[in-house]
Amino acid sequence: MRLVVVGSIGLDTVQTPSARREEVLGGSVSYACAAASFFAKVGMVGVVGDDFPEAHRALYRRFGIDLRGLQSAPGRTFRWSGVYEEDMNRRRTLATELNVFESFEPALPPAYRKCPFLLLGNISPELQLHVLGQLEAPEFVAADTMDLWIRTARAQLDAVISRVNLLMVNECEMRELAGESNVIRAARAVLRAGPQYVVVKKGEHGALLVSAAGVAVIPAFPVADVQDPTGAGDAFAGGVMGALARGGTPTLDAIRGAIACGTVVASFAVESFGLDRLAEIGSAEIEERLAQFRSMVMV
Amino acid sequence: MRLVVVGSIGLDTVQTPSARREEVLGGSVSYACAAASFFAKVGMVGVVGDDFPEAHRALYRRFGIDLRGLQSAPGRTFRWSGVYEEDMNRRRTLATELNVFESFEPALPPAYRKCPFLLLGNISPELQLHVLGQLEAPEFVAADTMDLWIRTARAQLDAVISRVNLLMVNECEMRELAGESNVIRAARAVLRAGPQYVVVKKGEHGALLVSAAGVAVIPAFPVADVQDPTGAGDAFAGGVMGALARGGTPTLDAIRGAIACGTVVASFAVESFGLDRLAEIGSAEIEERLAQFRSMVMV
Repeated sequence: MRLVVVGSIGLDTVQTPSARREEVLGGSVSYACAAASFFAKVGMVGVVGDDFPEAHRALYRRFGIDLRGLQSAPGRTFRWSGVYEEDMNRRRTLATELNVFESFEPALPPAYRKCPFLLLGNISPELQLHVLGQLEAPEFVAADTMDLWIRTARAQLDAVISRVNLLMVNECEMRELAGESNVIRAARAVLRAGPQYVVVKKGEHGALLVSAAGVAVIPAFPVADVQDPTGAGDAFAGGVMGALARGGTPTLDAIRGAIACGTVVASFAVESFGLDRLAEIGSAEIEERLAQFRSMVMV
Repeated sequence: MRLVVVGSIGLDTVQTPSARREEVLGGSVSYACAAASFFAKVGMVGVVGDDFPEAHRALYRRFGIDLRGLQSAPGRTFRWSGVYEEDMNRRRTLATELNVFESFEPALPPAYRKCPFLLLGNISPELQLHVLGQLEAPEFVAADTMDLWIRTARAQLDAVISRVNLLMVNECEMRELAGESNVIRAARAVLRAGPQYVVVKKGEHGALLVSAAGVAVIPAFPVADVQDPTGAGDAFAGGVMGALARGGTPTLDAIRGAIACGTVVASFAVESFGLDRLAEIGSAEIEERLAQFRSMVMV
């Protein structure tokens, strides 16, 4: 196993301007593991309830995801529902039911503990630290977070940030984290708090990679037919870490290449609800779109 | 003369989160001509009142801008004032005084009429058509517009769009123009109305170039110290057209290269209020940042 991913597994009810889907397989760990699976062997750490459909588990297996870290707990699976506004860049959460996720205690199976790459999806910083502590000698650790933890668990979050190699958060969270409205200055401030690399996720506007070497700019792959943006950031993060885990040493150049991979996988993810589109494609489609992407962004 | 630019000249009062400046030299033609001047000989078509400071005219001359098309009319120069919100991406207009701009009748001096490149800055489509009609045989024409004209002068705007080679508008306007929320689909719809090329300006998120050949993605140069975003889109458009006018045939590759030039000039423009930063730099700084930009966006 090259990569372990921990995060949420949910059944999402999503309303977009053109469609509505109920109880779609979602959650950060679903998107990230599916995305990573195109590049490297990935193991999942998450929890589902006893209502979790067997078909979803079968889909995870089709992606080749290792499920030894997938716990099943009595009760209902985490549920989220939200609605996207006309321009698909803004969403409103209608309801969140934590259910079994509320008492989630991520435990790494022994087979995961020597894994070199770790992606800490968006869960409480306390749980992120708990997972991090179970890995014997991680080579490269990335973490995501959200506004909730910035506001309610800052000390633990700072502990996470000080111990990861790469922090990947979205634009608003980067600003909030640093208390600085310019994202580049914000990313530089966060960089001083520990990570070697900071990635600012800007959704359909791409991403920025900030490190001691400077700033790299990665536009998003332009998608004409966005069906559902849910999970795009998680697919991006999973694709980045999968591509990094596939390669050798995570150098700056390797990270830049991995970000291109994450960008392309995320562009597929938004072309359907849930993991539907990712389930349709393979390495050939990813390589083809990567080549197209490279020819598009040459300046 | 390689390029003629028509547009507004204004004295702008701008409030940002950190500073306030009064009566700064602005307007689309000021920014566009200054930006274009780094690449090609450019002539200005605009109007100022009899209160227009001689120092501003002297600054135009320092940029090497041809001023034979600059009219002076009795009355006050156009004035605009606005305020930028905390994240610098949103601005509110506080006041607009058209003054001499209200009765502006752009007339091209004879020396301008054989000019091969034309940039129609954001003025009424009626005036844009009037200017276009005065050029003998333009080789490549670009136009900008704004929401006001989409709503109030659609027929004339459609006539402009049908006659230009390149339409450059911002993201919101592209959506409004096409009645389509996905910008790529919107740009494709506009493409069918006449232009060979459509550029979607996304401010700090860069630009998209859409043509029959597909979509090209150009991120913005990341600027850590944005002093004033006013005029960035105009500096971008001027830089693009200046770089195109410098070269030979405006092929797709030439346009992509020109967009990189426009991006870099715009990144300097936002580092100060008005034209202050553009007045400090020369070709060497632009070439240096272009090289830096190319190394940043390689994926």
